[in-house]
Amino acid sequence: MNDPAQPARADRPASPDLAPDLGRHILNPRCVAIVGASDDLTKTGSRPLRFLDVAGFGGTVYPINARNSVVMGKQAWPSLTALPEVPDHVFIVSPSQTVPGVVAECVSMGVPVVTVLAGGFGESGAAGEALRAEVEASLAKGSTRLIGPNSIGVVNNRNHLMLTANAAFAEPGMPVGGVFVASHSGSMIGALMSRGRALGVGFAAAVSTGMEIDLSLGEICEATLDDPEIDSYALFLESIQHGRHLRRFAHEAARRGRPIVAYLLGRTDQAAELTQSHTGVLAGENVVAEAFLADCGIARVETVEGLLRAPSLLRKLGAPVRRSRPVRAALVTTTGAGGAMVVDQLALRGGEVAAPSAKVLQQMADQGLPVSPGRIVDLTLSGTRPDAMTTALDALTGSDEFDAVIAVAGSSARLEPHLLIPSIEAAAIASPKPVIAFATPDAPDALRRLTEAGVPCTGSPETCGDIIAAAFGRRPPHAPVEPAAPGSEVRLDEAQGYAELAALGLPVADYAVVPAGASTSPLGYPVAVKVLSAEILHKSDIGGVKLGIAGDEQFVRAAAEIRAGVGQAFPGEPCDHLLVQRMTPALGEVLLSYRDDPEAGPFVMVAAGGIDAEIYADRAIRLAPVDLPEARAMLGEVKALRRLQGFRGKVHGDMEALAEAIVALSRAPRTIVEAEVNPVLVLPEGQGVRAVDAVVTIRKAADGGGDG
Amino acid sequence: MNDPAQPARADRPASPDLAPDLGRHILNPRCVAIVGASDDLTKTGSRPLRFLDVAGFGGTVYPINARNSVVMGKQAWPSLTALPEVPDHVFIVSPSQTVPGVVAECVSMGVPVVTVLAGGFGESGAAGEALRAEVEASLAKGSTRLIGPNSIGVVNNRNHLMLTANAAFAEPGMPVGGVFVASHSGSMIGALMSRGRALGVGFAAAVSTGMEIDLSLGEICEATLDDPEIDSYALFLESIQHGRHLRRFAHEAARRGRPIVAYLLGRTDQAAELTQSHTGVLAGENVVAEAFLADCGIARVETVEGLLRAPSLLRKLGAPVRRSRPVRAALVTTTGAGGAMVVDQLALRGGEVAAPSAKVLQQMADQGLPVSPGRIVDLTLSGTRPDAMTTALDALTGSDEFDAVIAVAGSSARLEPHLLIPSIEAAAIASPKPVIAFATPDAPDALRRLTEAGVPCTGSPETCGDIIAAAFGRRPPHAPVEPAAPGSEVRLDEAQGYAELAALGLPVADYAVVPAGASTSPLGYPVAVKVLSAEILHKSDIGGVKLGIAGDEQFVRAAAEIRAGVGQAFPGEPCDHLLVQRMTPALGEVLLSYRDDPEAGPFVMVAAGGIDAEIYADRAIRLAPVDLPEARAMLGEVKALRRLQGFRGKVHGDMEALAEAIVALSRAPRTIVEAEVNPVLVLPEGQGVRAVDAVVTIRKAADGGGDG
Repeated sequence: MNDPAQPARADRPASPDLAPDLGRHILNPRCVAIVGASDDLTKTGSRPLRFLDVAGFGGTVYPINARNSVVMGKQAWPSLTALPEVPDHVFIVSPSQTVPGVVAECVSMGVPVVTVLAGGFGESGAAGEALRAEVEASLAKGSTRLIGPNSIGVVNNRNHLMLTANAAFAEPGMPVGGVFVASHSGSMIGALMSRGRALGVGFAAAVSTGMEIDLSLGEICEATLDDPEIDSYALFLESIQHGRHLRRFAHEAARRGRPIVAYLLGRTDQAAELTQSHTGVLAGENVVAEAFLADCGIARVETVEGLLRAPSLLRKLGAPVRRSRPVRAALVTTTGAGGAMVVDQLALRGGEVAAPSAKVLQQMADQGLPVSPGRIVDLTLSGTRPDAMTTALDALTGSDEFDAVIAVAGSSARLEPHLLIPSIEAAAIASPKPVIAFATPDAPDALRRLTEAGVPCTGSPETCGDIIAAAFGRRPPHAPVEPAAPGSEVRLDEAQGYAELAALGLPVADYAVVPAGASTSPLGYPVAVKVLSAEILHKSDIGGVKLGIAGDEQFVRAAAEIRAGVGQAFPGEPCDHLLVQRMTPALGEVLLSYRDDPEAGPFVMVAAGGIDAEIYADRAIRLAPVDLPEARAMLGEVKALRRLQGFRGKVHGDMEALAEAIVALSRAPRTIVEAEVNPVLVLPEGQGVRAVDAVVTIRKAADGGGDG
Repeated sequence: MNDPAQPARADRPASPDLAPDLGRHILNPRCVAIVGASDDLTKTGSRPLRFLDVAGFGGTVYPINARNSVVMGKQAWPSLTALPEVPDHVFIVSPSQTVPGVVAECVSMGVPVVTVLAGGFGESGAAGEALRAEVEASLAKGSTRLIGPNSIGVVNNRNHLMLTANAAFAEPGMPVGGVFVASHSGSMIGALMSRGRALGVGFAAAVSTGMEIDLSLGEICEATLDDPEIDSYALFLESIQHGRHLRRFAHEAARRGRPIVAYLLGRTDQAAELTQSHTGVLAGENVVAEAFLADCGIARVETVEGLLRAPSLLRKLGAPVRRSRPVRAALVTTTGAGGAMVVDQLALRGGEVAAPSAKVLQQMADQGLPVSPGRIVDLTLSGTRPDAMTTALDALTGSDEFDAVIAVAGSSARLEPHLLIPSIEAAAIASPKPVIAFATPDAPDALRRLTEAGVPCTGSPETCGDIIAAAFGRRPPHAPVEPAAPGSEVRLDEAQGYAELAALGLPVADYAVVPAGASTSPLGYPVAVKVLSAEILHKSDIGGVKLGIAGDEQFVRAAAEIRAGVGQAFPGEPCDHLLVQRMTPALGEVLLSYRDDPEAGPFVMVAAGGIDAEIYADRAIRLAPVDLPEARAMLGEVKALRRLQGFRGKVHGDMEALAEAIVALSRAPRTIVEAEVNPVLVLPEGQGVRAVDAVVTIRKAADGGGDG
């Protein structure tokens, strides 16, 4: 999974002093230079100049060409240093070997931003690594920031800055709108632009971030937050890289009311292995990325169309708010099957289409619209009447029973778009609550009309469910974190681990440390007896754990067996002390863990105990810290815990104490790198929980001693 | 879930004598009559006549109108009986109250097929029920077959039979092709037609089956199998109704090489409750429907686009074949991110994009196409060259490493469709192996070109994964079944149940039946002792089961406690006999069950033991009987069974014996209605499995005694 050519950059601070003008230099440069601009139309190097010309970019453009003094009919310059002024933004389209030299020039001239088209900077072996190192060394000497390499460029639809080699921008008439698109993949920029065009979704600007050897996607987006015309962000992510930058951008974007939607590749291991990946927790399973994005307040869609359709819904919703239950939508339709398709698609993603109350039905009846009670408001019998749709939408959007309202239109959306579409559009615009439209037939004109009016809509039931679930699946973003202070990592023994947990307020089963030769338990009986060692991780496997010790005789025998087992498995490893722990009957057990990830920051997880967690991937994950309501929500996500919540008449476990334990662990100080408490015993309601094992790793300041 | 207005029709035989001419009368009538044809363009009744006229239907059309002698400029007739000939097909568009009278006329005239537009035949209470009963009584008197009620009609694009009131058919220029569309929902017919039109998918004909009070969707489709121009079937199902008809149609369609794809509503409980549903296992959970369709050889898609896109892939694949592993596809792409999206979407659905072997890579290299090893064949560095795509596709389609090949095209699919699309098209047509194309940009022209050439393609990565997984997820269809002979159902006691299981060859733990007053175990110790009763289902709950009885003294006490418990819970219920069973140490346990469903036929299921099955819905289901390879495949689907297959170093359970037990149970005779064996103990490899509980219900012929 880890690409050695693309090492983790955990040591970089989050957003190191993004220059205040960075966003302007990226998207609104007064003058740009194109290094490697070419007359040869078959060459990529000819494109940016051509595109800028056709689009009508108003700023100054300097073609740089070492051999020709005229390129595409424009005066060309032999080098950047020959220019009469320092460009705001340099686009390097020349081959990769030339890039280090040009970047060095940019740095010494004080060019604020340089974008590099060429690839071959590490993804292709040692030669590329060397080029990359040269570029990084140059950047370290000045204030120049770099986009790429392997960036297809930057496009601003407002000022016609077509600083790109992507053929997709040869097409005129791109719809201009408020969405900023950022993509790791260059080719997906073109794909998204053409798809947006077909749907009538307008873009403010777009950037392909490539290898991110300097500016990360999160930093570039953050730099654009001062652009008042950008009202939302659509991100195409190959993996979550530079997680702290993304957190910081997301937090700031939420503060300013700019929603973010992301499509993230690598939902499966097969796809994850294809994308550049980093070390750390975010390189791992999809469920972690899912939690990370949700806790950044980023809506994660699972359909490509959703990436383009979600912004309008997110703009209506504004910043994410905490919800104590899944999204609940009302649905009004002129076609039962069309409605049922959307019900399925939303329910598959954890949401609910809910029946209107008798009160809401009465409101409709009072307005002359009798509707049968049920999960969906089916207007089929009333016919395809604008006033019926308006009455229904008014009643549903006006009720506080729903988070959103879905309007489903049948054949009329295609054949008689004047019938229902204006009603839906008007209701959607007038309502503070989002109205999402779904059309069952192919109805491009109706959908384009709604899109242009800012009404979220789609012709795909899957996208409809997707964008609603994604938009309401966001949580208020966590504050950004700086990386933890550097230091060496030290794994603690079980007793030291308990001390850390207890200090956090996490209940630990009674325990005592005794010399390995002790002949009695200081805690009475029954107890568990275990080897005490920071080095031995799988104590049970080597006979280092004896459970259910009921008296002195068993105690002495257990101690002897443990010493023998350790001596055999780890010759030379001292076995001076044993940990004695009170045996506690419990209803069940769970796994709690915490990890301060260098890229993403601290995470907390609760999982089914035993092998269920592995077999069913049954767990809940959040960025830490979490509060009590969020911890309770986590418990609701772990299916195995239903067994402890009165499932089939069983005794209730102390879920509240478990939630409190999650909160306690999630508040670990940054000195704790990792803590795994496996298991935590769950006792009956009112009797709490108890940690009965702990592996804790702490970070010690560099001068704070050895590494254990 | 069960709609009382739409009772199960389990007593109807499968396909009772479909007349040989039924398909012709439905789709190719020489003359049709439209009852309720109207001049009033604002009325639905005006549509069929208008549509037939505009489309240019060549047969005879008789408008029937009691009041006017001319309708839409055509001679009209006062009634069916006034006509000079008997129409092949009558379309009734008059109100529901008039329908019974017209149907009675049709029956007495010997009209072969009548289609009824109006709703209101049971879905709306007693009045509707009465209308329905009248219609059914008329039908019983003759050979007339009925489509609907609540059918939007029948359309044949080849002979321009527009026997429909759906406004969608007012649009001219419908592409004609080989797909037959059948839909429970009338409104979805129009939606699918317009979507097909947009994609360039051509239809042979379409029918909306409505309430299916006579002809079911499966029967109508079966009747069209003689139409040589229909090459595939696309079904929009609200629920699985008349399962036996569907099985019979699917079996016959597979025999004739006509593939079937289905979109089935009700994947979630929320949506399932919206659709008309029947009694029986198919009204239950989605997983049963999933298994049913797969075992019918029907490809089940989960996207609407997939319903239209899958037929071209299915046609290429032909009849479903047994596969011992998930689908394995090769992928060649000019855009890494585009390829990765498809990898994700296929893997999410259980398939795999697999890396070509060194041999295949060498073949490409020998043709001048050096490609880096890896899961996807990424041509990015070779550029967008037709010869590169051709070379790659030739090597991949020519290899037996893959079931299918996916070709992903980037921006060129939109901007320069002449570059790659012809290469993909040519390779797809030439190859016996399916080639599926995915375009990352909006590329309607390229996709339409491929579609018209019969090449499966899409612009949605979700649909791409969907249709491949659906097409390869089919299994060879089971033979159709007739309903079991009628009889009363009798539940057996545990010992009688074991006798049935043992007769099937399913291993049962040693047991003996003893008088309730017995003082010793005939099997030695340890044993389990249980009350023996066909009436007491939850024996443990009333203290009717004692485990781990180790000697005579415990045995006597256990017997007394059981008698007391039964006496308390079921006063008067005799407790004359006890079942004594040998205790067998086991590695784990599973649940096996069998059910002869009146609608679908016999099913067999294996599930995780205990509450995992409920919490995680962890199980595998098949139509019965299954053979050993299929039983092994079932075991592979139950995640919990990994624990018994060497997971984390655990001892292997006897999976082969478990598979044999599934096979044995699946071969139950039709006299067994239901058998639940919970649990079956799984012993270590080589030691077999043992049933240690059984609830078996048999069917006794009506004269075979009481009902127990």
